[in-house]
Parts: sequence; C-alpha cells; structure tokens
Amino acid sequence: MTDHDPLAGHAYTADKAKLLARLKRIEGQTRGIHRMVDEEQYCIDVLTQISAAVSALESVALQLLDEHLRHCVVDAARRGGDEAEEKLDEVSRAIARFAKS
Amino acid sequence: MTDHDPLAGHAYTADKAKLLARLKRIEGQTRGIHRMVDEEQYCIDVLTQISAAVSALESVALQLLDEHLRHCVVDAARRGGDEAEEKLDEVSRAIARFAKS
Amino acid sequence: MTDHDPLAGHAYTADKAKLLARLKRIEGQTRGIHRMVDEEQYCIDVLTQISAAVSALESVALQLLDEHLRHCVVDAARRGGDEAEEKLDEVSRAIARFAKS
Amino acid sequence: MTDHDPLAGHAYTADKAKLLARLKRIEGQTRGIHRMVDEEQYCIDVLTQISAAVSALESVALQLLDEHLRHCVVDAARRGGDEAEEKLDEVSRAIARFAKS
Repeated sequence: MTDHDPLAGHAYTADKAKLLARLKRIEGQTRGIHRMVDEEQYCIDVLTQISAAVSALESVALQLLDEHLRHCVVDAARRGGDEAEEKLDEVSRAIARFAKS
Repeated sequence: MTDHDPLAGHAYTADKAKLLARLKRIEGQTRGIHRMVDEEQYCIDVLTQISAAVSALESVALQLLDEHLRHCVVDAARRGGDEAEEKLDEVSRAIARFAKS
Repeated sequence: MTDHDPLAGHAYTADKAKLLARLKRIEGQTRGIHRMVDEEQYCIDVLTQISAAVSALESVALQLLDEHLRHCVVDAARRGGDEAEEKLDEVSRAIARFAKS
Repeated sequence: MTDHDPLAGHAYTADKAKLLARLKRIEGQTRGIHRMVDEEQYCIDVLTQISAAVSALESVALQLLDEHLRHCVVDAARRGGDEAEEKLDEVSRAIARFAKS
C-alpha cells in the first residue's frame, strides 16, 4: 500500500491505530483460549470464545479487503493494463480463500 | 469436562498437549498479523495470514466439538432426562454459533 | 431415522411438513437466481439472493443436525459399542464438511 | 452490467451459458434435497447434499463477484467521483454479507 494518494494515506493512518488495537485484542483472545484449555474449562465455553475470535478476525479481514479495493485495486484500475488484471486476479483469489476459510 | 470416565479422561490428556501446542501456534499467528499491519505489509499477504489463522481456529473448534460429543453428550445421553436435553440444546447452539462465525 | 422412539417420531413428522415447505422455498430461490442471471439483472442483487439461499440451506442443515443428534446419535450412545463410535465419527465428519462448505 | 465495453460483454456472454447451466444443476440439487427429506432418507446423506449445494452456490457467487469487480467496479473507478465510492461501498457490503452467510 505504498502508492495511493496522500489523502487516502492519511485515512489509512487514522484506521491503523484502531486496527492494531483490534489485533491486540484478538491476540489476547487466543491467549485466553489457550488458558481455558490448559485449565480444562468447559468445552462449550471454549467454543464460544473461538467463535468470537473467528468473527473478530473475519471482521478485520473485511476491513482490510475494503481498504485494499479502495486503494490498490482502484489505483491499478485507473492505470489499467496487466497490473490491473493482476490485482483483480489477486483480490478474487483472496476473497475465495477467505470465503472457504 | 469433569465427569467423563477415566479412560476418556486419559484420551483427553493425550490430546491436550497437542491442542495447547496448536493454540500456541495460533497465538503466534495473530501476533504475526499484528506485526504485518504495523509494518504496513501488503494487504493480500495479511489476508492470507488471517485466512490461515481462521482455518486453524476452526480446526481446533471441530476437534473440541468432536471430543465434547464423545464425552459430555454421550455421557448425558446415557444418563438421560433433563440433563441430556440441556446438553443437546447447548451443543446445537454451539454448532449454530460456529457455523455463523 | 428409522429406529427412534414413537414420541420422537411424532415430533419429526410435525417438523417434516415445515422442513419440506422451507426446502420448497429454497428451490424457488434457486430458480429465481437462475432467472435473474438469465435476465442479466444487477450482480449485487444476484449476490444478495445467493447469500439468502445459502443462509436458508445452512439453517435447514442445522435443524437436521440437531434432530440427528437427538435421535440417531443419542440412541446409538445408549446402545453403545462400535455403532456409537461409528455414529460419532460420522456426525463429526458431517459437521466438519458443513463448516468448510 | 450494461455499460462495460463490448469485449468484456462478449466474455460475459460466453460465461453466461455455463453460469445458467450451473444454476440449473443447483436447482436440481435443491429439488433432490426436498425429495430426500420427503422419503425420510438418512440425515447424514441429506447433510452431505446440502453442503454440496452450499459450495456450488458459493462458487457461483465468487464468479459473479469476480466479474462484478472486473467490469462494474473497474469502470466506476475509472470514471471516479461519487459513483466510484458508491460501487465500492456496495461491493464491500456484498462481500461482508457473503462472508457471514
């Protein structure tokens, strides 16, 4: 994400702190799941925490995908040519991987 | 998972070390995703890592669900009565939550 | 689902008409999606209908899974032995397939 | 999908027949699921068919999304302005809906 315009870059920077805070929380959630299994807590409660961590990761992925479309894909589309094709192939594969995960 | 029989408990203990190792790796994956975003690495690469972490968490959830069915649900089914009903309601809700996450 | 007790069988029959009505609606949804593509309607509207059909199918699957656990798996658990093991392997594989679909 | 260029339109027409054939098969799959439930076939076999229908629908959705990005979103990005913003909001919402379904 190096060649978007300064305005878009500014928006990204604003989101970055929030994004990092969300990822920090997700890391804490996975540490909590480890502790729950270690303490042999009730399976269903562990499953609830795993579902929450998965939802949180998917929500981060959707935000990254949205930003990627707005910046990288839009920029490449404007420049056109092979690079645009490659970016479109790449993002479609990422969406497919994400849908299957 | 406190009232399953000793044999089942033994099987659980054998899996526990592996399960904890997998959760440790997942915690490392989420830490890696945080670092990638912090270093502003390429979105698509971050998305690939998120898909991998989601798949790893889902795989742990499926293993826990399998063990829960084999131990808690089977034990409750054998004892019958309200407890069996409650365990079945509970596991169905957990599967639904997991399917929607 | 042939060897559950008569009461459970009755409950199943009550649900069956509703289940068939839901599946009839899902068949109608898929026919509608075909027509939308044939008429070259707007992609996003087609995607919305596909998401709705997928959610409806998943909801039917969760209901069938719930009934399967309550009848077949519980019955097999009570009888015990190899049959119980097989039913548990089978339902865990079905949940995994469903989670990945 | 009315204002993409003639070449893209041609590609779409080529895919359209295949897409309609796939949707016809999915309609057949949902009719088959209805019949299986009506005949009270084994739950696990019904679940397998539902997983297959869900995967087939998701695969069609991924193809439509790919075409939508290549045609509508790229065209809008090139024209820029509010329309580009709207198309990006719309496609991100569609991906989110699809990821949660």
